[in-house]
Amino acid sequence: MAIVGLGLIGGSVALDLKNKIPGVQIIGVDMNERHCQMALALKIVNEVKTIEQAVIDAELVILAIPVDALIKVLPIVLGLLEPGCTLMDMGSTKSLICDQVKYHPKRGQFVASHPMAGTENSGPGAAKEALFAGHTAVICEAQKSHPAHLAHVENLYDILKMRLVYMEAKEHDVHIAYISHLSHICSFVLANTILAKETDISTIFNLAGGGFESTVRLAKSSPEMWCPIFAQNKENILFAVESFREHLNMFYDALQSEDCSLSFELIRTANGIRKVWSQ
Amino acid sequence: MAIVGLGLIGGSVALDLKNKIPGVQIIGVDMNERHCQMALALKIVNEVKTIEQAVIDAELVILAIPVDALIKVLPIVLGLLEPGCTLMDMGSTKSLICDQVKYHPKRGQFVASHPMAGTENSGPGAAKEALFAGHTAVICEAQKSHPAHLAHVENLYDILKMRLVYMEAKEHDVHIAYISHLSHICSFVLANTILAKETDISTIFNLAGGGFESTVRLAKSSPEMWCPIFAQNKENILFAVESFREHLNMFYDALQSEDCSLSFELIRTANGIRKVWSQ
Repeated sequence: MAIVGLGLIGGSVALDLKNKIPGVQIIGVDMNERHCQMALALKIVNEVKTIEQAVIDAELVILAIPVDALIKVLPIVLGLLEPGCTLMDMGSTKSLICDQVKYHPKRGQFVASHPMAGTENSGPGAAKEALFAGHTAVICEAQKSHPAHLAHVENLYDILKMRLVYMEAKEHDVHIAYISHLSHICSFVLANTILAKETDISTIFNLAGGGFESTVRLAKSSPEMWCPIFAQNKENILFAVESFREHLNMFYDALQSEDCSLSFELIRTANGIRKVWSQ
Repeated sequence: MAIVGLGLIGGSVALDLKNKIPGVQIIGVDMNERHCQMALALKIVNEVKTIEQAVIDAELVILAIPVDALIKVLPIVLGLLEPGCTLMDMGSTKSLICDQVKYHPKRGQFVASHPMAGTENSGPGAAKEALFAGHTAVICEAQKSHPAHLAHVENLYDILKMRLVYMEAKEHDVHIAYISHLSHICSFVLANTILAKETDISTIFNLAGGGFESTVRLAKSSPEMWCPIFAQNKENILFAVESFREHLNMFYDALQSEDCSLSFELIRTANGIRKVWSQ
């Protein structure tokens, strides 16, 4: 197996595969030399190669790189692929990525996917076992992948103990704008608002309860990963932020006009989110 | 000890006190008969009494009720207090509460405080051990409490393993608007935005990663607790929401105009929140 990108996601996949598949050989690829050395030192990968070398021997090539690099690298790697080898990505956006290889002669060897797991940390040092277990992986445009390659990827996600969901790329990007990308924007904006107000960081530390910690946790996420995601899913995200802004204004107006029954109702509606976990 | 309000906070205090102080007798008070029965069944309290009866025997009376009830109940209970008995509150707002007893002849027996801990659940069934350990408790207007009563409350928070911070009530309410109340509003608004878009709750469940869970967790919090907090800290909260709205607009504009260097910078600034935990 070859893993391109030895950050949080690629590193965590490697750890699980080494634990679950006896004798598996994992070839790591990363432009960042320090990441390569760390991945070797942490025994996340067996060896490190260039992308051209890695692709020759691999049965499965996993692209776990930021989505701006992904749209450039994906068609190239697909072009290099030996017959029988499966290529998959793990990017957080899907439309632009699928479009990139829509007419590629080897499209059937590629499976577009998005494992819905992560932490606010990055790099091979952030890799952890069982990061994916119990979460969902989305496979997009499954009908465009050859059944054998699709089965290969389904089997991989089974090893990572992920639930599988299938949808079209456009559909994925709309839902994910609301359910994942908007959460990150809220967290970044919340952190910026608090940091602008509280010039003494110790005040925040002193008053930070569990609620603060959980809402600003995502604000630690790296701009290298998130700027390209926001750029690629721009239209959907702008709609989501506009809708958020309208709901925020409604809340603001209820507080300002001291309309307690309306603010009660707005909170009661928000409580409906409990249903997500009580299915 | 008498605990008025047998919800998450009052119940959790009782559990810790029973564990840490051998032989302590805890009298519970709650208007909700079902809460009283649950607290007895769960052995959170030794007995249940009316507030008038509870106050007679107690050395320490803890008010752990929503802040709208608190401003009404506090002056009455303070009036009922025997000499030598300490009264403390655990409300999330402090200015209005302190104002309520500013000229009360027994003001010295009261200690205004706010333990910065909680979960999104409520009621005696949500009570848990060590809820407070490692978090901060704020004591407000300490100079208005008699030193013996202040020491009594400081000792209680020491038993709960909380760090103590002292500030004026107005100062507390400003900071807490940004660090706690705004987080809750973001979470409620985020939940409402997502629920308005995603009519099929299973889509949210399927796509919910860890980031989604941590940002919307607070949206499960009860309106009975939060409406009165928002009403009592209205002015500070409106300022905080206005500032959040400005930072959100800045983010939106950066995305819309595809100003990648600005959005990178905004995320990099938000990453500064890491300093809170690396002090």
